[in-house]
Amino acid sequence: MPFPFKRFRPTQVLLVFDLLATLLVALEGSSAGVLAHLDFFGVLVIAFISALGGGIVRDLLIGATPPNAIRDWRYGAIALLGGGITLISFQTVQTVPHHLLVTLDAAGLALFAVAGADKAIEYGVSPLSAVLMGATTGCGGGVIRDLLLNRIPAILHSDVYATAALAGAIVTVVSLRFRLPRGWAMAAGAVICFTLRMMAVTFGWSLPHVAGY
Amino acid sequence: MPFPFKRFRPTQVLLVFDLLATLLVALEGSSAGVLAHLDFFGVLVIAFISALGGGIVRDLLIGATPPNAIRDWRYGAIALLGGGITLISFQTVQTVPHHLLVTLDAAGLALFAVAGADKAIEYGVSPLSAVLMGATTGCGGGVIRDLLLNRIPAILHSDVYATAALAGAIVTVVSLRFRLPRGWAMAAGAVICFTLRMMAVTFGWSLPHVAGY
Amino acid sequence: MPFPFKRFRPTQVLLVFDLLATLLVALEGSSAGVLAHLDFFGVLVIAFISALGGGIVRDLLIGATPPNAIRDWRYGAIALLGGGITLISFQTVQTVPHHLLVTLDAAGLALFAVAGADKAIEYGVSPLSAVLMGATTGCGGGVIRDLLLNRIPAILHSDVYATAALAGAIVTVVSLRFRLPRGWAMAAGAVICFTLRMMAVTFGWSLPHVAGY
Repeated sequence: MPFPFKRFRPTQVLLVFDLLATLLVALEGSSAGVLAHLDFFGVLVIAFISALGGGIVRDLLIGATPPNAIRDWRYGAIALLGGGITLISFQTVQTVPHHLLVTLDAAGLALFAVAGADKAIEYGVSPLSAVLMGATTGCGGGVIRDLLLNRIPAILHSDVYATAALAGAIVTVVSLRFRLPRGWAMAAGAVICFTLRMMAVTFGWSLPHVAGY
Repeated sequence: MPFPFKRFRPTQVLLVFDLLATLLVALEGSSAGVLAHLDFFGVLVIAFISALGGGIVRDLLIGATPPNAIRDWRYGAIALLGGGITLISFQTVQTVPHHLLVTLDAAGLALFAVAGADKAIEYGVSPLSAVLMGATTGCGGGVIRDLLLNRIPAILHSDVYATAALAGAIVTVVSLRFRLPRGWAMAAGAVICFTLRMMAVTFGWSLPHVAGY
Repeated sequence: MPFPFKRFRPTQVLLVFDLLATLLVALEGSSAGVLAHLDFFGVLVIAFISALGGGIVRDLLIGATPPNAIRDWRYGAIALLGGGITLISFQTVQTVPHHLLVTLDAAGLALFAVAGADKAIEYGVSPLSAVLMGATTGCGGGVIRDLLLNRIPAILHSDVYATAALAGAIVTVVSLRFRLPRGWAMAAGAVICFTLRMMAVTFGWSLPHVAGY
């Protein structure tokens, strides 16, 4: 069964989704930067790092240098565009309904996690590492953003976020292992990640802590 | 004079020690994560980063990509195992006698520092950089752990820890420079690092600060 | 029109300036370390990271591994020398007139930013990324220093510092694009960066924040 978007090459479809997800994460990250009282430059840096930091770390770790986000100017441009939109119309960005934002963010997480795991497999790392690279792609930008804003990264202590990324990456890696076509392996992983994330938000799930600490 | 473990190849002996040290550092790091109120996922991340972060940074810096800890699934598995043990039996891990823990940790530090310096020399960096890479291997994971937990890294302001790693790395690098066999160069460095660290703990040594600050 | 320093090869002139800038930034960084109550080892680490961290991150990102500061022992030695001078004579370092320090620092920033952008172009990244790499070279060390000292990096919320680095890098990259000789492209960028930084300090400029935040 072929990939379902017949008129486009899968890589084109992926690229469009990837750039959209980058824009969205840049909008979110730069909004956090405004709320942390950064200046215009700082907001643009946070937009860039939030959107591209995870993929850059992944590329460094799997040996794909220079990282895609450095080599291909479109990623940087889109991330900075997201930061610029926040600077110009922060009030408007803040009025985006929360539920829509969460949904788009879950879609972006799914895409990043699954594409990250797929790329890691392509570069020949072990399946375990490919799963970790998927989660790194999805969550790494947010971790660096939190470090720069002098906070303990949110994904380490609250929310089912990285766990959804891991689940999606695991499904993709296992599917590739069983020789499913690449498009389907990625679609399956993305659906799992997105669904898990949305259910966690809807039902208020969070991961357990060690009892008493 | 040949390497003293006759029945095993030196690389096998090293691998076993390396995996043991990784497990120990993962146990320590993940315990810090529990005490910082991280959730299950966060504890596993801290276990992974504490145990493997130093070696990953070293490999990135000397150009050995993908880093060994990403390429070889055993390291990630052992680190996550350490985190898992902490999650399941944190109370028990906390009852390990302090003196035993400190001794094992000093042994792990010695192994990481010496192996890190040796690998850096092998990749052709300068002797000064090889010494720094040894200390990075020994201490880098702890530094990233402290950054994630939003603390000034402990090794920067207290304790004779990194200094012991540096001393061990210097001895190894100088010994290799004088063409001592590799096994002996590493053994000499490890003994120096371990001894210095244990004496520092025993006698309560700490490094001086600039007077008045 | 040839490069103006006739008796020296441009690379020699650059190297001398680069080592001087490294020493200066190491002195500044290590002073911040003393004020943050780090011990002797911590002060040396901060000296090293402040002076060389930006260039190391740039080299990792453009794929120039091992980074120059790791391969060439002179950079590490100069950075540690700067840290050592601070340790021995912190009081004296503190008496350097503020205006002189700011001027030298602006010169160092200009050199790092312009040389960083030039090197990135040489490694074939996109012009946008080359500009970002110039700013990273100039400001990256300070960002890592602030992270280690558990602060929100200063360049993200105050001062026209990174902006000057970006301006210098843009001028250099655009000049190279229009096929100006390399020496002149770098000189033009450095003059712009230095002038902008000095004017910002003189007139107390700072970047705008999003209104109300």
